[in-house]
Amino acid sequence: MYDIKYFLQEVEKLFAEENFLGTPRELYEPIEYTLRLGGKRIRPTLLLAANALFGGNADAARGAALGIETFHNFTLLHDDLMDRSPLRRGQPTVYQKWDENTAVLSGDTMFALAWRYMLRHDSPRLREALQCFNETAIEVCEGQQKDMNFERLPLDGVTLGDYMDMIRQKTAVLLAGALKIGALLAEAPEAEVARLYDYGIHLGLAFQLQDDLLDGYGDTAVFGKKTGQDIRDNKKTYLPLRALGLCDASQAAELRTLFSDKDNMDEEDKVRRALDLYEAIGLRSEVEKAIGDEFAKCLRALDGIAAPEERKTPLRELTEMLVGRKK
Amino acid sequence: MYDIKYFLQEVEKLFAEENFLGTPRELYEPIEYTLRLGGKRIRPTLLLAANALFGGNADAARGAALGIETFHNFTLLHDDLMDRSPLRRGQPTVYQKWDENTAVLSGDTMFALAWRYMLRHDSPRLREALQCFNETAIEVCEGQQKDMNFERLPLDGVTLGDYMDMIRQKTAVLLAGALKIGALLAEAPEAEVARLYDYGIHLGLAFQLQDDLLDGYGDTAVFGKKTGQDIRDNKKTYLPLRALGLCDASQAAELRTLFSDKDNMDEEDKVRRALDLYEAIGLRSEVEKAIGDEFAKCLRALDGIAAPEERKTPLRELTEMLVGRKK
Repeated sequence: MYDIKYFLQEVEKLFAEENFLGTPRELYEPIEYTLRLGGKRIRPTLLLAANALFGGNADAARGAALGIETFHNFTLLHDDLMDRSPLRRGQPTVYQKWDENTAVLSGDTMFALAWRYMLRHDSPRLREALQCFNETAIEVCEGQQKDMNFERLPLDGVTLGDYMDMIRQKTAVLLAGALKIGALLAEAPEAEVARLYDYGIHLGLAFQLQDDLLDGYGDTAVFGKKTGQDIRDNKKTYLPLRALGLCDASQAAELRTLFSDKDNMDEEDKVRRALDLYEAIGLRSEVEKAIGDEFAKCLRALDGIAAPEERKTPLRELTEMLVGRKK
Repeated sequence: MYDIKYFLQEVEKLFAEENFLGTPRELYEPIEYTLRLGGKRIRPTLLLAANALFGGNADAARGAALGIETFHNFTLLHDDLMDRSPLRRGQPTVYQKWDENTAVLSGDTMFALAWRYMLRHDSPRLREALQCFNETAIEVCEGQQKDMNFERLPLDGVTLGDYMDMIRQKTAVLLAGALKIGALLAEAPEAEVARLYDYGIHLGLAFQLQDDLLDGYGDTAVFGKKTGQDIRDNKKTYLPLRALGLCDASQAAELRTLFSDKDNMDEEDKVRRALDLYEAIGLRSEVEKAIGDEFAKCLRALDGIAAPEERKTPLRELTEMLVGRKK
């Protein structure tokens, strides 16, 4: 069981065995649709692997694994509504396939279903695990609000620090929270729980920066998304924000123009100009360095955890998968 | 402490002492706005009174009281968005005062804040209380979906049984759940918890039927709403659904016409025609009888609870307030 495939398969089995339909069907069909769309299932896999790292009772962890993934999918459902994203994993999003009210209410219900899974099994440290889950949920909402706030600001209005804080809340705390919940349910010592959480934060940051990098430099055929979508959308990701610090005055002016464009430019021209500028200032290697730094912190935290080395293998494999990924 | 005023004041104090603001302010201002709008605070009052009925530790109940009211206000916030209601308690609703995305995300965050309050204090039966809270939340969502489904159906498409089932889920289970949570946190015996839940269901049904009745027969000056709003909105409440069973064929045709009108009729004429029809078939006394039946079941359940009679006084007072109310 000490490889990541084992846990990925466990998670697939968990979802395959679960029934997500109920009455009224108008409420549950969008939920089942969302939870069957697939995805990488990273969070429940991390939760199970963290639980096994400390020899936990997998039963309690299995409920929580379903819960954390259901919560994650709820946030995607509502985010897609708020961002008016038509597609998710190549399929129409719920508000598109049904309507906005269905997206609101099915999402709310998914949040409650996540709690049902979290509460499915008792455990001596259940309350702590639930508190971690809930504080994580609140941070994810705060991160989403900050992300939406950024949309209304000019490129200069968001600092790299603001951005790192936003992705920590919107992305990293949920990976860290999944790990912590798995460890708490295994009754791991406080200090190890804290180290595992720290590992998760840096994993999440590295993961998100990698995602930002792939938008500019990914192989479309492998990544599955069109290169430069964040540039088309004027998204203030790590790339343009880091770029600003490397630009001279005229380059900075060009960057500001590109990222405040209200659909007047030819889209492909805009992407090309941004990527040319990135190339001129050597952005790619700077971003790779930042990812490398987070990756190193992530592995250092993992090294510091007092647990049998072979039990860490799955987490090391998952880390490599997520941070070294091409998609 | 054995009167309802004591608990209503306790609840007011709880809310007055709490800080609902946080960062980012765009997320928390609509939450604080919603939670400061007031309202009758029935659910937390029921929770505290049920807790005291069994001599519970008020501390654990206080967190849960904040939690249940925060949850209730979250559902109102999202319902107002879904129903496109511009006003709540005489003030603009969140989606009107801010925007739709703010309503979605602030609502989601309120649901999580409700959980923070529910988890604030430990208790030997915390997990059961949390499960009750969560299953209640799921039923409320199911009830809201059924209510939305009814809007798309003709008057004949909804039976009285469907309607009672919908209001049980949308309204009654939250009153019953509040009582049950209060009792569980007081470690009340199973049988008494069940009786209290039963009391809450019938209280909730009587309360909602009373609300339906007031729409048709309430004194606008006292009720604070314009008479006949449900008729203007073609809302399939207990009134027209019960009326169908009392009508002859031509009256039934008239009722169907009135409740399928797509804004072609003069609104006041429509309300008058519906109320005239109700008068002709003696609807009011029939609805009052149904309310009386639920009220009787409610009091019978309360009588059956093994607890000191003087401790039941607050619940008796609240029942009288809610079911005998003019607004």
